[in-house]
Amino acid sequence: MPGPDPAVAAIRLAVRTALRDNGLRRVIVGCSGGADSTALAAAVAFEAPKLDAEALAMVVDHGLQDGSAQIAQDAAERVRRLGLSAQVVAVEVADSKDGPEAAARAARYAALREAAGRTEADAILLGHTQDDQAESVLLGLVRGSGLRSIAAMAPAGHGLVRPLLRISRQQTRQACAAEGLVFWDDPHNDDPRFSRVRVRRALAHLEGDLGPGLIKGLARTADLARQDADHLDAETAALQDRLGGAPWPVEELTGVPIAIRTRWWRGALAAQGAVIADLSSTHVASLETLLTGWRGQGPVDVPGRLRVRRGTGQIHVEPSGQVE
Amino acid sequence: MPGPDPAVAAIRLAVRTALRDNGLRRVIVGCSGGADSTALAAAVAFEAPKLDAEALAMVVDHGLQDGSAQIAQDAAERVRRLGLSAQVVAVEVADSKDGPEAAARAARYAALREAAGRTEADAILLGHTQDDQAESVLLGLVRGSGLRSIAAMAPAGHGLVRPLLRISRQQTRQACAAEGLVFWDDPHNDDPRFSRVRVRRALAHLEGDLGPGLIKGLARTADLARQDADHLDAETAALQDRLGGAPWPVEELTGVPIAIRTRWWRGALAAQGAVIADLSSTHVASLETLLTGWRGQGPVDVPGRLRVRRGTGQIHVEPSGQVE
Repeated sequence: MPGPDPAVAAIRLAVRTALRDNGLRRVIVGCSGGADSTALAAAVAFEAPKLDAEALAMVVDHGLQDGSAQIAQDAAERVRRLGLSAQVVAVEVADSKDGPEAAARAARYAALREAAGRTEADAILLGHTQDDQAESVLLGLVRGSGLRSIAAMAPAGHGLVRPLLRISRQQTRQACAAEGLVFWDDPHNDDPRFSRVRVRRALAHLEGDLGPGLIKGLARTADLARQDADHLDAETAALQDRLGGAPWPVEELTGVPIAIRTRWWRGALAAQGAVIADLSSTHVASLETLLTGWRGQGPVDVPGRLRVRRGTGQIHVEPSGQVE
Repeated sequence: MPGPDPAVAAIRLAVRTALRDNGLRRVIVGCSGGADSTALAAAVAFEAPKLDAEALAMVVDHGLQDGSAQIAQDAAERVRRLGLSAQVVAVEVADSKDGPEAAARAARYAALREAAGRTEADAILLGHTQDDQAESVLLGLVRGSGLRSIAAMAPAGHGLVRPLLRISRQQTRQACAAEGLVFWDDPHNDDPRFSRVRVRRALAHLEGDLGPGLIKGLARTADLARQDADHLDAETAALQDRLGGAPWPVEELTGVPIAIRTRWWRGALAAQGAVIADLSSTHVASLETLLTGWRGQGPVDVPGRLRVRRGTGQIHVEPSGQVE
């Protein structure tokens, strides 16, 4: 008897390793019905029993397309044929200032987390591939917001596990084909209103211009960036522990390397009640001038109605008294 | 009298800041005759005398195109009309396994450094723009070789100063137009045999797909990456100082965060005579398993005829005895 198709084998190995290395005994599998999560579900159905792990597939119906309820039911039915339990959960996607994709993602993750809590699952398995990772790196670069956004998606963390981050999207399609699995091609995947679709096109263009290896290069960049970001964050947390709340001595802060200090401002001000999501790199640059460009200037207002000022060799944080 | 064109003003300010902040009194200006370096030379001609700094423009003739000697002489003559001294230096571009662009760059930098040494210049000014920086970031990403390659070009270091890294290519063209300066459009800039040309096209495609702000985002990414890489390298150097040469205690190494340890391997093995340019991420991964995946395996051969092995709680480095 020949072994399984190479793509099937690679995906099963990735799933087995993820289940074992993370010590998972009960998992939720997030399923869209697309090739990625269908290949993931098939591999989980194959591997989980051998590791004595339980798995429940959840198909989220976002209610954003005509017939979405039926599409979700069909996807759940296909997963059941693989031997996994499957449920459909319908969510309501609220309007969001971050756009429809972010809103759908937030609703989806909330539903998956709710299911994980209800079933006491150890983790939610997601079908993100190496291509998704490369796209996320590119989106992070465009934002220009630093190492953590280049690090893109973690293989495991915050209750989420992504076994397929080193598997290509093409491999998931090949695995479905080899196993005769039907999957759903979401027409939204071709709709350029979605930034994810535009970045996918951009990557295809880039590979055409720069040659193959780009997606692997971006994914490797993400791995290296995550190691670096984790270490820098740990150092920053240690500094924050040591310095505690405001006031902070200027002399001590000026001795901190800038890579750590720019991160420390965010954490330390969050602990004082600042709204970090609204703290821009311009704010941080102004805070930095209190330390390194000091010429008697006034306080810096930061989001969360806080005011940061320098006085008598220390950095003080006070309520700004302003209505924002 | 109206002030200068905004692009001219921005470039002059960038040049003035670079000369002053780096304390430069005598500089070489690298000139290709293109818009970027022509705008740079014009700004240097305007600002240097006010700061009592001397400047000499060097035009490198790579001898790679028909009529290159005349093109170089014409470029030098145009720079002289700006009021700068200018010389042409002809170089021979050797074949290189890294391709013709790398070979031309190596010959050009060697000639500029020779001129800087001969004239006792403090630094070589180069006309790289924000667009060049974004292109370099993208090339670094494709290689997937980590933070230092994303950091791309430094504004100042190793005798090179790049005043225009926050100026767009379009601004340099606008400045030339506003001042009536003729510049040379190198036909190689449109030749897709060159990876720099391909990455330029890729960036244009990307901006089309992802919208404006990409080039600034990539350049900001480079700035942040440089801060982080500098700090991580400093930590690594401190660790290398502390641990000294081999043998190294396993217990101490396993306590080092992986972001630092992967950098430390390179520096520490270089100090033992390894050829670091040939040390791949696969080598480093094998070295890591001596620490974190230890199951009695054999030594790891590294380029430079070295062999790294684990024994009695220590990591040893020995000659491999192999001919490579």
